[in-house]
Amino acid sequence: MQYMGSIEESSYSHQTKVDNLGKSLAAIVGLGMIKVGMHWSKSIRELAVEAGLKALDDAGNPDVDAVYVSNMASGLFCDQENLADLIADYLALTPAPAVKIEAACASGGVALTQAVAAVASGVYDTILLVGVEKMSELVSTEVTNAIACCLDAEYEKFYGVTFQAANALLMRMYMEKYRVKREAFGEFVSLMHQNATKNPYAQLRFPVTVEQYLNSPVIADPIRLLDCAPVGDGAAALVITSTKKAKKVVDNPVFIKGIGQATDTISIKDRVDPLFLRSVSKAAETAFQMAGCSIEDVDVVELHDSFPFVAFMAMEALGLAERGKAYKLLENGDIKPGGKLPINLSGGLKARGHPIGATGVYQAAELSLQLIGEAGSLQADSPAKALMVSIGGVASNAAVIVLERGD
Amino acid sequence: MQYMGSIEESSYSHQTKVDNLGKSLAAIVGLGMIKVGMHWSKSIRELAVEAGLKALDDAGNPDVDAVYVSNMASGLFCDQENLADLIADYLALTPAPAVKIEAACASGGVALTQAVAAVASGVYDTILLVGVEKMSELVSTEVTNAIACCLDAEYEKFYGVTFQAANALLMRMYMEKYRVKREAFGEFVSLMHQNATKNPYAQLRFPVTVEQYLNSPVIADPIRLLDCAPVGDGAAALVITSTKKAKKVVDNPVFIKGIGQATDTISIKDRVDPLFLRSVSKAAETAFQMAGCSIEDVDVVELHDSFPFVAFMAMEALGLAERGKAYKLLENGDIKPGGKLPINLSGGLKARGHPIGATGVYQAAELSLQLIGEAGSLQADSPAKALMVSIGGVASNAAVIVLERGD
Repeated sequence: MQYMGSIEESSYSHQTKVDNLGKSLAAIVGLGMIKVGMHWSKSIRELAVEAGLKALDDAGNPDVDAVYVSNMASGLFCDQENLADLIADYLALTPAPAVKIEAACASGGVALTQAVAAVASGVYDTILLVGVEKMSELVSTEVTNAIACCLDAEYEKFYGVTFQAANALLMRMYMEKYRVKREAFGEFVSLMHQNATKNPYAQLRFPVTVEQYLNSPVIADPIRLLDCAPVGDGAAALVITSTKKAKKVVDNPVFIKGIGQATDTISIKDRVDPLFLRSVSKAAETAFQMAGCSIEDVDVVELHDSFPFVAFMAMEALGLAERGKAYKLLENGDIKPGGKLPINLSGGLKARGHPIGATGVYQAAELSLQLIGEAGSLQADSPAKALMVSIGGVASNAAVIVLERGD
Repeated sequence: MQYMGSIEESSYSHQTKVDNLGKSLAAIVGLGMIKVGMHWSKSIRELAVEAGLKALDDAGNPDVDAVYVSNMASGLFCDQENLADLIADYLALTPAPAVKIEAACASGGVALTQAVAAVASGVYDTILLVGVEKMSELVSTEVTNAIACCLDAEYEKFYGVTFQAANALLMRMYMEKYRVKREAFGEFVSLMHQNATKNPYAQLRFPVTVEQYLNSPVIADPIRLLDCAPVGDGAAALVITSTKKAKKVVDNPVFIKGIGQATDTISIKDRVDPLFLRSVSKAAETAFQMAGCSIEDVDVVELHDSFPFVAFMAMEALGLAERGKAYKLLENGDIKPGGKLPINLSGGLKARGHPIGATGVYQAAELSLQLIGEAGSLQADSPAKALMVSIGGVASNAAVIVLERGD
């Protein structure tokens, strides 16, 4: 029953059918974030409501037609399913429709594509999207167990494979095949931490040197502690409205120009070419086609760096570097602040933090701040187009979204 | 932060903005179900794939643009998140986009509204929707615990309130306020079991008398064992395509004419009028407005009877009976096979079974069989319009959908 075709053989586009071609699908008119961290004293409800109220306030409290919630595993982390309804309720938005969307670590990006599609279709005029994950209720072994549920439970997790271990296999393969040195990953980690020092919403606001990275404890060889995104709680929210309505709501909307989503086999063992992130490549193809532009046109990127080597592979899948050569983007300074294409000015998953279901929503919120010129000391040089790449599982699911400054 | 307005005060429509008015939004062109039951030897993957393949085969194996999965708690039941990707993978449908939708017991109905909206909007031409839940991996106390996650975890579940206990409070209130006798619920249960004896996909295919109902053990007074839907595994799938394409795919499509979704407070304690299912009423209002018809035009109904009194309150919210008078629909024989408006010819949640995230999809599949005249010995007298009511939590979430025979 497994997918057996090679990437080249697949002539099947799976592209969305919206005849958009460069037009705007929807707009972001409000955003809210809370600092990622261990919020021991706040429940998942409080985190979500805080971010949601911020976003609504930011948009001038418009009427909301539906509440979308992105979250991976509130059942496992907090004993709470029916999460979208809970959040709609405590935002005083009932009887508005409420729906929770899950796609592992890509939940945020996938939920955003769903919300944008719903607005583009005219089903809803205005949607509040809240991404939230509260991980601090559990002890670390239980967190590891919950995260591993994004693998194949029957053929991977059952045998003791953790998410870190599955990624370790792929990282080893990447290092061996392309002869990439540890130091290259260390440079990425150091850059992420450096960026995060300026991000008020980041979890790890301290610098890390390559040496510290190299000497950090082994988690699942070759993955070390400082390869990993931290465990943390977070919530971010967006108010998404129709292109038509956007300028009536705020002066500076951010337009969504393209959305793409794609999958790959859940297990890396089933992939023809495990070192190529087919999900990211496919989703980007769809998003750029819809937006009527290419990666060349993008000024700033937020990209899913669950581990530095995943960030490298994602950059390669986007066509930013040849395969195995993403480290050169670091060497050249291309992806640093002020570089040709700054990546993860927020600090990325590595240092901003990775509250799973919220992460994609943070990315969109951070890019929105960049596009409207309100990113403070993180601000890039007046970017016009931004790209977000949200990845779930071991890149078994991906959502790619093209955003544009509204002027 | 709670919703404090009365139903009457709320002038806020939360209606979807699709200017449809009686036109078709999308069509069901294929369906697949497996018998609900304790499938000890099959994993959640196998259940989902079996139903998915049946539906694809039924539709003549069309190209699929996206996979939607409805499921409440595979993380708690099966250690499996990232479920949509898993199912897309094992149906050999990667790199198609895959998304899981959760809205407690209403997951199936809500996912169907999401899929229909995506097709109506042109985002996707053809979607495979798979509803699945595997509950038999856990022992019964753990199942009770998992189900209780659809309540408010912090203010209800934490204090030991189970889903059954929360419903018991409401059932007691309903019985006291309207002076409804136990026997009335027994009549409903007896009818559901009678209907299920003819349904090859039903879990409980045996008759139950009112006397057996009255003498069944107390679970949470006044709820007795035979009030409860059984624990079971199940999967059902639908192929949903655009109205335009439907007749090219199959001769007998079923058209979706209206979709509605709405919420209520997650906890019954916060409701102005706990005995009125505002979520169901609101969702029905939206769906009928979109479909350009009313409950009067409906020929057959599948309705969420998590407990008989919930079915009664849903019938009242739909306007089929005055408040507290739903039992009269049973007395008159209106909702029996051959009656004015047959309800739950499948046997309902009570006897067909209630594999949580799959239930709404079963409802749509069963109604589709009714509309194309292939419901076998369950068949109603050539129904033209059908209604499904999918409810989540203690009616904190509801989806209502109007289906029509395509001729």
